[in-house]
Amino acid sequence: MSQSLFSIAFGVGTRNREGQWLEVLFPRPLLRPSSVFINRIKEILGYEGGNQIIDFNFAVAAKLASALKYIAPEQSALLVRLAESRKPTVICVLEHDTQPVSVPEAYLKLQLISHRLCKPHEINLTDLYQVLPNVAWTNRGAVDINEVAALQLEERIKGRMLDVFSVDKLPKLTDYVVPKGIHIADAARVRLGAYVGEGTVVLHEGSINFNAGTQGASTIDGCIASGVLIGADSTLEGGCSMSSNANQPLISVGHHCVINSHAGVGISLGNRNTVEAGLWLSSDTQVNVLDAAQQLLKTVAASELALQDDLSFRRNPETGVVECTTNPTQ
Amino acid sequence: MSQSLFSIAFGVGTRNREGQWLEVLFPRPLLRPSSVFINRIKEILGYEGGNQIIDFNFAVAAKLASALKYIAPEQSALLVRLAESRKPTVICVLEHDTQPVSVPEAYLKLQLISHRLCKPHEINLTDLYQVLPNVAWTNRGAVDINEVAALQLEERIKGRMLDVFSVDKLPKLTDYVVPKGIHIADAARVRLGAYVGEGTVVLHEGSINFNAGTQGASTIDGCIASGVLIGADSTLEGGCSMSSNANQPLISVGHHCVINSHAGVGISLGNRNTVEAGLWLSSDTQVNVLDAAQQLLKTVAASELALQDDLSFRRNPETGVVECTTNPTQ
Amino acid sequence: MSQSLFSIAFGVGTRNREGQWLEVLFPRPLLRPSSVFINRIKEILGYEGGNQIIDFNFAVAAKLASALKYIAPEQSALLVRLAESRKPTVICVLEHDTQPVSVPEAYLKLQLISHRLCKPHEINLTDLYQVLPNVAWTNRGAVDINEVAALQLEERIKGRMLDVFSVDKLPKLTDYVVPKGIHIADAARVRLGAYVGEGTVVLHEGSINFNAGTQGASTIDGCIASGVLIGADSTLEGGCSMSSNANQPLISVGHHCVINSHAGVGISLGNRNTVEAGLWLSSDTQVNVLDAAQQLLKTVAASELALQDDLSFRRNPETGVVECTTNPTQ
Repeated sequence: MSQSLFSIAFGVGTRNREGQWLEVLFPRPLLRPSSVFINRIKEILGYEGGNQIIDFNFAVAAKLASALKYIAPEQSALLVRLAESRKPTVICVLEHDTQPVSVPEAYLKLQLISHRLCKPHEINLTDLYQVLPNVAWTNRGAVDINEVAALQLEERIKGRMLDVFSVDKLPKLTDYVVPKGIHIADAARVRLGAYVGEGTVVLHEGSINFNAGTQGASTIDGCIASGVLIGADSTLEGGCSMSSNANQPLISVGHHCVINSHAGVGISLGNRNTVEAGLWLSSDTQVNVLDAAQQLLKTVAASELALQDDLSFRRNPETGVVECTTNPTQ
Repeated sequence: MSQSLFSIAFGVGTRNREGQWLEVLFPRPLLRPSSVFINRIKEILGYEGGNQIIDFNFAVAAKLASALKYIAPEQSALLVRLAESRKPTVICVLEHDTQPVSVPEAYLKLQLISHRLCKPHEINLTDLYQVLPNVAWTNRGAVDINEVAALQLEERIKGRMLDVFSVDKLPKLTDYVVPKGIHIADAARVRLGAYVGEGTVVLHEGSINFNAGTQGASTIDGCIASGVLIGADSTLEGGCSMSSNANQPLISVGHHCVINSHAGVGISLGNRNTVEAGLWLSSDTQVNVLDAAQQLLKTVAASELALQDDLSFRRNPETGVVECTTNPTQ
Repeated sequence: MSQSLFSIAFGVGTRNREGQWLEVLFPRPLLRPSSVFINRIKEILGYEGGNQIIDFNFAVAAKLASALKYIAPEQSALLVRLAESRKPTVICVLEHDTQPVSVPEAYLKLQLISHRLCKPHEINLTDLYQVLPNVAWTNRGAVDINEVAALQLEERIKGRMLDVFSVDKLPKLTDYVVPKGIHIADAARVRLGAYVGEGTVVLHEGSINFNAGTQGASTIDGCIASGVLIGADSTLEGGCSMSSNANQPLISVGHHCVINSHAGVGISLGNRNTVEAGLWLSSDTQVNVLDAAQQLLKTVAASELALQDDLSFRRNPETGVVECTTNPTQ
């Protein structure tokens, strides 16, 4: 077998009544484990290469825990706990970063991003939605859509309550991992697969989709759509929106940018850019570029200004035309 | 007694300490049950007509389950489960669709809509709010407003937690029914009494009030106020708002419409209409109607353009005046 | 010791594994208790003045309950319940309203506001954030950020679910107190320390930060930032924003004001003011003040119009300039 792996992780998850996976929690996913690590476990698992999903029982967990005790004590401790699980346990081994073809693979990849082991844009999530089932997310855990009505009644007649807080292919981030050094005012608004950089504060109007996020201490009170990555020390004011599209699936924003309230941006931005409140900037928006004396230099599509530093976008209050000036450097 | 009924349903609910109903779950409400169905149960219930709320015990539930075993096996199975309930059970019989006068009636009507048995606008909800009590919605179920402080303390000293996620006359949809084929990113934003059409995706900024909804596979990332019904394959972009008012309590939007971000619409729209981002269109907004050559045809109140197909509303970027052009048919 | 106190309260809270306080629930906080009250308890507590945090056990709780039985029966009943607590109990005594220096003090002050015993602006919350730890708020209660991963795994292998609904220094209001006569559609959006006036309705787009709120029956569907206090019978339409800033940390809005959708206001307003949808009004916005004949009287910074009654702010649709007219009095 190969001596190198893209990723490996031990998890516990939920299956529906027909035995199909709904989701898997991988508490400590590993990216590119050492060859020593691989050699210790491959015989126990009978692993011979490729991307594989392997169920395991108490005995296998105990053997793995023992084999990894000194070289990977955190993984060993995790396996000791998983050995006692009442819920189904699983190992996901990915030799290559190919497109996910099973629920455990998809969940492992989303958790690699949210554990900050891979950045958005850096991992293969092709056709992710075709792999993931729609799930009712409840205070009793993940429930198959076709089983939720029965469980709802069951809980009620026992005097309890099934709180169904989301019906979605993707769960919320914080039910899988709470990354270090972050604040999220309303966790319902950040999906698993979000990359939330250390120091990031997500306020009540902020939301982050999967395969998107922030690289450092940014303040997010607007929407970060899938495919968008925000630099450090940038601010998204209340109700603004950063979104990618079919032509530009990946959008990045530099550091020290300020996107003001209710603005919408669909192009990549450089560093220290500002966008006026309420301004919508898509790739084909016509922009008048002004010089320091506020004289017109040229008119271009917004996409031509992508990734340039120190720009300030606003609407001319009298003509409504979008203008771009150069932000004075501090 | 009448051989026809508007609706009947068997439910389990919550009463406060004084015995008043706070809410009722009706897992399988029936619209216009057959006369065979009615005949089987009327003697067991001693029902002789009118809109009635009937408490029932184990013995009655067993008799009803037996009587309905072959003609309505799903209702029979439900009654078998309800017979074991620790929480109070109730039958709501509505001979006529008159205005609701009790909590069980109001909850039955809201669930008829959310089970897609009645559309918004098609059922009598007059003075609904006067019937419904304000309730604390918690992980322990519905709690009377006057009992919540005591329960909060009780749970705390036992080392548990009372999560009060809403204080409102209406609960969230998904705690009563998860309609087939839908996604709701944050279920706190869709109320019971919403009609969520098959294929509808409600994103994080989307919300749907009671007696409102979507008829088919629409994408909803804006607010659908009470009284508003959206056609199939329409899109409400982030933070837009569809609202009715006292003069026009019922608003409809056709199919294949696009309401862009932060726009607000208060008139009914036909099919294939588009509304520019940030544009507010109320019934008395003055609109310049342009022909294909962009020449002014006439100036009218927006309400006169209601329900017309293939319109595109925008603000003139230089004058700020609202303009309407004809969308090119595809 | 002093015969007067600023506040005293008996509570039950959560400590992390190292014994540090994460949060405290004070079900019935007292502002300026009587000298009779103080005399009854000071010897039992050995209290001799100053701001103090005092742990207490069953025996002390019983003595206090007995001493207060006739002069403060509600406090006595609370102490009887707290005596049985499985979670740590604490007394917070504040002789003076100085800046909070401990978690129990900070939580007491936030609860004094939310119980409507102090208004925003009226209590010393200096450097509040430096005192409060970041906490994972879950269906199992408050969890230390460093302990959440272990608890997440623990719950999973037992077949349960840890629902982490917020990661924040401040919890949501309704997990501490549900003030009388209010509605909050999505409780995740109102923080502890909010002052929610009787009759206030907070809709799905509404949010209220700590040290901010409403004085009476207002309808809130926009954001009330920290430091902002809204008068009675005012309306914040969907997605608008009231915010203070470093220069003006305290902003007030009068009664019968209407801030329309997606507007933003950063100055104090008088009574019966209206702000047009989408208009942003900061203290240095230039405003053309018009007379009854719509003639220009003067151009001033918006801050000069602060706190004046009967103003209406809008953008001139042709020039985009912000204008202010006088609202006709009704």
